[in-house]
Formats: sequence, structure tokens, C-alpha cells
Amino acid sequence: MKAVSSRTTVKRLPKRGNYDPAVIHAILDEGLVCHVGFVVDGAPFVIPMVYARDGERLILHGSNASRLMRIGATEVELCVTVTLLDGLVLARSAFNHSMNYRSAVVFGRATAITDTAEKRLALDRIVEHVARGRTAEARAANDRELGATTVLSMPLAEASAKIRTGGVGDDEEDYTLPVWAGVLPLRVVADLPIADERLAEGVSVPEYVRDYRRPGGKRLSLHEATASTEA
Amino acid sequence: MKAVSSRTTVKRLPKRGNYDPAVIHAILDEGLVCHVGFVVDGAPFVIPMVYARDGERLILHGSNASRLMRIGATEVELCVTVTLLDGLVLARSAFNHSMNYRSAVVFGRATAITDTAEKRLALDRIVEHVARGRTAEARAANDRELGATTVLSMPLAEASAKIRTGGVGDDEEDYTLPVWAGVLPLRVVADLPIADERLAEGVSVPEYVRDYRRPGGKRLSLHEATASTEA
Repeated sequence: MKAVSSRTTVKRLPKRGNYDPAVIHAILDEGLVCHVGFVVDGAPFVIPMVYARDGERLILHGSNASRLMRIGATEVELCVTVTLLDGLVLARSAFNHSMNYRSAVVFGRATAITDTAEKRLALDRIVEHVARGRTAEARAANDRELGATTVLSMPLAEASAKIRTGGVGDDEEDYTLPVWAGVLPLRVVADLPIADERLAEGVSVPEYVRDYRRPGGKRLSLHEATASTEA
Repeated sequence: MKAVSSRTTVKRLPKRGNYDPAVIHAILDEGLVCHVGFVVDGAPFVIPMVYARDGERLILHGSNASRLMRIGATEVELCVTVTLLDGLVLARSAFNHSMNYRSAVVFGRATAITDTAEKRLALDRIVEHVARGRTAEARAANDRELGATTVLSMPLAEASAKIRTGGVGDDEEDYTLPVWAGVLPLRVVADLPIADERLAEGVSVPEYVRDYRRPGGKRLSLHEATASTEA
């Protein structure tokens, strides 16, 4: 991975920049939604999308009718950003307020995957990215569905991460102010799954849903966490 | 609000489009991070930022040294997107998998706020957006800090929302499959606040931090929710 280029170099607060592929991969693997930027008639568009990382590339997908898919397939420049918000940093001064976050930005051009077998595997990656284990159960795409879907592959060759962690940084003279300061950690949790009303008889909630977690081991199931606290 | 224009019209799955200013405002008010798209040398950039809604405009801010602030102040086209992820929709077929979400997209040009009093009010809006009540306690920006900060105002004249709610939509022939299907609700919660080590004596956690919630009444404090469940 050739991570550092002129545009991947973190310009603002460069000490927060990180070009370690493992760090970038971890952010991409933990996120669920990316924001894809593209240009139409010189103006920017930013659209939220599901995605997956597949080794050294990102997979995006959508209907053949999607403007972003049609434009993306013409190999124009894209920018894909994934942001994980970890907490609010409440300083004594308004100016030093901040947020703890981990973001990854990927620049480059995507190409449409046309080989049917490769397309199937790429779509599996997206399903597995969202719910690991799901492709073993869900009905795979049939030919009609596959034909109606555009799948884009975008190399991770130009990517960078930007990370802010830790506590409050106030100006020295502000520390005596009688103002509460600290970090309010934020995270995403899953509530109890809501089964579809027409579930076939005898089908129970799979473990990867009941005990939902993102790669990196983070458990998102709120009810599970509560249960283990009470135990 | 002139919400509907050629580019705010939701192209893909138009039934998910919503142009009601109240709906758009609610999404912008609940979100914490937006993704700002801008164009440099014809290529898109997408950067996560904090923001605030102030009536019929969005407020963005950053260091004078920030590239996005410098470029944004020249009144180029921007696209600001806020996405709230509400759940995973796990269908019986891979193809019908989806996500429940609410997103708002704002197109337009921003202008730099140069009037000092207006700039102060706009910065207050950002602090209040993140933690309502905070400006009454935190030390306000001094002249040096104010001078080092660029504040942009972007009208909400061209904005739209896109929303997906509800359950699974599978193809009729798939309902008999022995595959679990349903929705896994996701939400953001706050863990217990972590006080700064150098807190002045006698300062306690303010209510707006301990009982953190987003506009719309959503309580994010996980520990509070747990406590009330146990009570």
C-alpha cells in the first residue's frame, strides 16, 4: 500500500495523521457506512453507502440505475471517507472543545467488476462486512439480481487515517476555572433484534445477530452487555 | 426553504426522499458529525466535521489554516451530508439486505462570517449543538481564538432528506426459507463521563453531560438507561 501521496497527507494537525495500513484497515472494517464523494459538473456530491474492505481494495455496490454507480464505473475520481465517533471532548474553554474520532479517507478511481464469479464474491464481502456469517444462511443473489447490480472495486493505494484520542487539552491558565471538563465516550450499540413477522417456523436468532459485534472484537449488543454486568 | 432543485431530488428510490424542512432540520439537529464534500483540481474531497444548524443555515468552523475553511470561504460549491444509522435490515436474500437510516444532504455555497458578534453567536451554536447548556459554563473564545477561527455559513436552501425505516422486504417466494430475518436496531449511546484529572475542586458533572441526549429527546446515557431499567 502506497499510502502517502500529496492528497493523503493529513494537512491539518498532522500529528493526528496515520498511514499504517493496519490502522486504516481496522477503521474501514469497523465502520458500517462510508460517505462517497464524487463530482458532477464541477460540484461535489456526498452520498452515504454500505461498503466492504476486501484486502487492498474497497467494494461499493448499488443498482445499475444509481447515478453514483454509473458515474463511478466510468473511473472518475472518488473520495471515500469512513468516520467512527468515539467521544465528545468537553474542555474548559469553548475553543478547546474537540471530538475523539477515527477516520479513514481513500482517494482513487474505481472500476466495475464484470466477471460474474468475482462479482458474487465481492457482494458476499459486503454482506459479511455487515454481518459476519450471514452469507452461509441468506439466499445468494440470482442471475437477475446480479445483473441488476453494479459492483465497484476501488484500490486502497491512496489512503490515510486521522485519529484523535485522549483527554482534554486546555490552556494552562484555564485549569483553575470552575468548569467541568472531560470526555463523554460515545459508541454504537445494538438493541434486541426485531424478528420479521413472517419468519418460518422454528427459525431462531443466529448468534452473529444476537451477539452482534464489529471486527476488532467490539460487542455492540447492549442487552448482552447489561446482562453480563448484572451477572 | 426552497428544498427541491434538480440536484436535491432524490434520484434512487424516490419514495425514500423527503423535502419537509422539519424532517431535514431534525436529522441535522440529531447528528454530531457531517461529511463535507468539496472539489480541488476537479477531484472530490470528503472531510468529517462538527457543525450546527442555526435556523435556515448550517454553521461550519475550523482553523484559518484548514484547507477546507480556506476553500469554503471562497464560496465554492459544497455538499454537506449527515447520516444517522438506525439499524441493519437482514433479509432472507442477500439482495434484499438494507439499512435503516436517515440522511440529509445540503448543497450550496458558504460564506465566511466576518462580523465579530455574529461569529461569536455562530460558534456558540456549534458548542450548543454538541452539548446544550455548555456555553453558559465554558469560557467563551477570546479575541485571539476568534481571530484564528474561520466560521462559514451555508444556507439550507437546497437540501433534502432520505429515509429508510421499517422491516424486511423479501421476494414473495423467499418467505418460506428457513433463514432468520429481521431488523437489528442500532443507536449511539454515551458511557459514563470521564472527568479530566485536573478538575477544579468541587466541580461536579453537569446534568447535560450526565444525562446526555440529542435534540428530539433521545437519551444517550447508557448508564442512566440501565439504572432506570433496574429501578
